[in-house]
Amino acid sequence: MMQELPLSRVAGLLGSAPVVMLATSSGGRANVMAMAWLTMVEFEPPLLACVVGSDHLSFASLRASRECVIAVPPAGLADRLVAVGSVSGREVPDKFAAFGLTHLPATEVAAPLVDGCIANLECRIRDDSLAGSLNLFVLEVVKAWIDPAQKGAKTLHHLGEARFFTEGETVTARPPAPRT
Amino acid sequence: MMQELPLSRVAGLLGSAPVVMLATSSGGRANVMAMAWLTMVEFEPPLLACVVGSDHLSFASLRASRECVIAVPPAGLADRLVAVGSVSGREVPDKFAAFGLTHLPATEVAAPLVDGCIANLECRIRDDSLAGSLNLFVLEVVKAWIDPAQKGAKTLHHLGEARFFTEGETVTARPPAPRT
Repeated sequence: MMQELPLSRVAGLLGSAPVVMLATSSGGRANVMAMAWLTMVEFEPPLLACVVGSDHLSFASLRASRECVIAVPPAGLADRLVAVGSVSGREVPDKFAAFGLTHLPATEVAAPLVDGCIANLECRIRDDSLAGSLNLFVLEVVKAWIDPAQKGAKTLHHLGEARFFTEGETVTARPPAPRT
Repeated sequence: MMQELPLSRVAGLLGSAPVVMLATSSGGRANVMAMAWLTMVEFEPPLLACVVGSDHLSFASLRASRECVIAVPPAGLADRLVAVGSVSGREVPDKFAAFGLTHLPATEVAAPLVDGCIANLECRIRDDSLAGSLNLFVLEVVKAWIDPAQKGAKTLHHLGEARFFTEGETVTARPPAPRT
């Protein structure tokens, strides 16, 4: 069951750039892919920048619908994250069904939420002026959901190909005063 | 001692978005700050997008000089990373000296390399069309350096304020075949 998350807390979710799933819907058809390249851009309203290769079906779907869902999977979904990132929606028309992922309706966008994820962020394109040249989209998170059942789940961080790391030791810095 | 790193390997350094230092130089004056919001945009030539708040001295310096160095600190520099991120160059004119950081000359840009970091990336602005509205810069890495003495050092990933995590367990995904 998803609970709404205050938009002020989105930066805490994406600030360390976990690998995510990008869900889109256009022409009545939902699709999902993996995405590793994203960063927060603003705290509130939460803006993020992400890169979607122009050869992907999701690129066309995102540009056409101008909205999407970004889902943050727990480490336990690593296999399916890589699966949806390895196969095109052109070859496998329903990647959700093909890889045993359930989608749920969003409230602000047509793209679906991905069940089993730590968080789902409903997004609209804020700026796509660099999409043509650099595949770069700036998105605004308009609604955010968190799954309390995933509390304590670890996120995935990309090392390359199908390898990831999860959060390890926590470091709390104690900054020195400047030498004068 | 820094060794040159092939530009094809930059994405492996920044793909999981470690927290970095941003070094700039303008008017003969070097400055350094901390930056947590960045993402790769292209593999080669390596392009990245990053966010620098417009109220920071580094924003003005980056826009004026159109170049910078991005340095990837090891976990052992967490205290100094937060220190350079907590104090403005307006208050502490030489943050390198004030926090015991050594800078080294770069070869392609006027901004300095930061000694003791895992890697240093000499960058030029590729696109700043979103700098005015969103504080977003697209940079091209024109020269990359790695410090072999830092082999095995862990990078820092932001949790918020002065807290970070380092790489934990490695997860290697084994994606399933699609169900037909």
